[in-house]
Amino acid sequence: MGDEELEQNAKTGGDSRAYAAGAAFVEGRFVPVAEARVPILDWGFLRSDATYDVAHVWRGSFFRLEDHLDRFERGVARLRMSLPYGREEIRNVLLGCVRLSGLRDAYAEIICTRGVPPPGSRDPRDCENNFFAFVVPFVWIADPHKQERGLHATISRVRRIAPESVDPTVKNYHWLDLQKGLFDAYDRGGETAILVDAGDNVVEGPGFNVFAVKDGAISTPEHGVLEGITRKTVIELAARDRIPLEARPVPAEELRQADEVFVSSTAGGVIPITTVDGEAVGGGRPGTVTRRLREAYWDLHEDPRFSLPVAYG
Amino acid sequence: MGDEELEQNAKTGGDSRAYAAGAAFVEGRFVPVAEARVPILDWGFLRSDATYDVAHVWRGSFFRLEDHLDRFERGVARLRMSLPYGREEIRNVLLGCVRLSGLRDAYAEIICTRGVPPPGSRDPRDCENNFFAFVVPFVWIADPHKQERGLHATISRVRRIAPESVDPTVKNYHWLDLQKGLFDAYDRGGETAILVDAGDNVVEGPGFNVFAVKDGAISTPEHGVLEGITRKTVIELAARDRIPLEARPVPAEELRQADEVFVSSTAGGVIPITTVDGEAVGGGRPGTVTRRLREAYWDLHEDPRFSLPVAYG
Repeated sequence: MGDEELEQNAKTGGDSRAYAAGAAFVEGRFVPVAEARVPILDWGFLRSDATYDVAHVWRGSFFRLEDHLDRFERGVARLRMSLPYGREEIRNVLLGCVRLSGLRDAYAEIICTRGVPPPGSRDPRDCENNFFAFVVPFVWIADPHKQERGLHATISRVRRIAPESVDPTVKNYHWLDLQKGLFDAYDRGGETAILVDAGDNVVEGPGFNVFAVKDGAISTPEHGVLEGITRKTVIELAARDRIPLEARPVPAEELRQADEVFVSSTAGGVIPITTVDGEAVGGGRPGTVTRRLREAYWDLHEDPRFSLPVAYG
Repeated sequence: MGDEELEQNAKTGGDSRAYAAGAAFVEGRFVPVAEARVPILDWGFLRSDATYDVAHVWRGSFFRLEDHLDRFERGVARLRMSLPYGREEIRNVLLGCVRLSGLRDAYAEIICTRGVPPPGSRDPRDCENNFFAFVVPFVWIADPHKQERGLHATISRVRRIAPESVDPTVKNYHWLDLQKGLFDAYDRGGETAILVDAGDNVVEGPGFNVFAVKDGAISTPEHGVLEGITRKTVIELAARDRIPLEARPVPAEELRQADEVFVSSTAGGVIPITTVDGEAVGGGRPGTVTRRLREAYWDLHEDPRFSLPVAYG
């Protein structure tokens, strides 16, 4: 799909104010996000047989979009699906959604679903896979105020779905464990949840990877977690700035004993956790390593290697 | 919603031929199933934060509908959701879908989703939960021909999502493990998959519970499985007919050594498995216990205690 076709397609979607809350691309056309719908019979819904990715737009530019597209394409292949659009078309669809919305700071999601089976079939090989996309205003795991003071997390008694069941490197919508973890956190006075594996090692939380800092060195779980693009960025920034970092099993206890804890997510970057299970981490305020990485993360958005400006027109 | 309101609502949905492939109830109105859509932003889709149930209609009557509604309501409560419709309204919606479709043998699904969060929120408590329903022609796990000769199953190396992560008694759409199991089965010449737990005990397959028969006695997994209504029916029929049955851990090896293996599902009742991992089970033909239970299962559909006739009008 070229730019011209894109524009034409967009015109069918309604007037421009309708896109202010976000734009979506569904069933081959652009629509305001509030109108966007997926077929009820799509196994992406009825079997959560889907993969997705979320990139973000910051001050008018996509950040590390190619990394997100790489991961998305790998996930699609691992689920044995094939995209009905090529990479350039998908990039254009995303740019088209952002342009339509006019949003300068946005959250941009792309989705590949198994699709709708022929009547009576229970065989996923019979499906034509579907592609959807939508762009909405930037979503924060913690708003800037909470980022300043740090989030309150609880370590959940719900176990994250094991990699022997569902491959976490294929970004997926199997979130019932994370949602239950959130409810548990709220019940215990927390604001977010960190889930563990069967060996009581920390894994991840709803939409983020986890890091601990002890004596100036960083640790982060390596197994059973999403390979987050923000996580990757943190690892690269730590290497660049010579902060020791190890990806390895991280016992929940280590998190409770840490000097600093932070999480990483496309939905907010590097975010400090200042209490775990109600106990202050370090001094109960965002630590120096966390603050330094957070700053470095946002600074990196100026780097043209990672930046794709949107031509808003 | 009363019957009258239902009728009125239905009229808005289009002409009656459009419903022949199935009818759905979405966002408060009836539509042909092919037109039925769910909001892309509903966390039922984007987080698979939903529960559902599937009942069936056979020769013009629902079978054990109240059991399905009981289970559905329990699942909704366990996910801390609340239905926007009462039980009688939901029953009427289902009857309305069947009536509109005119289907005598049908598969009837009801769904409760977390709903669409307010813009920017990541808190499931902020959502108004949604209800959807649809009815399509009866779907078989194995068509009547394959039921006669028995299905070929493989025991998958994919582990079923553990109950410590996601409560399997809340019927849910976390199917990526089951879908992967299916692909593995196809690769190995099988037709369906049976998944195991971390202890290599049999758990369940895509849409069914599993049973083994040895020396006239039945065993079926008790832990980590959906509490299937057909499974419940099999357990009740075995008790009635004095066939010994134990719900307990069933090692995968026990399945390979069994005289008979069968599965139970709303999508087909009691269905024989005649090969496991390419090896014939018993004589490689449906066994006597399986055949007896299958017959008893279909006979039970005549019992008015379990039957709700649809007034097609």
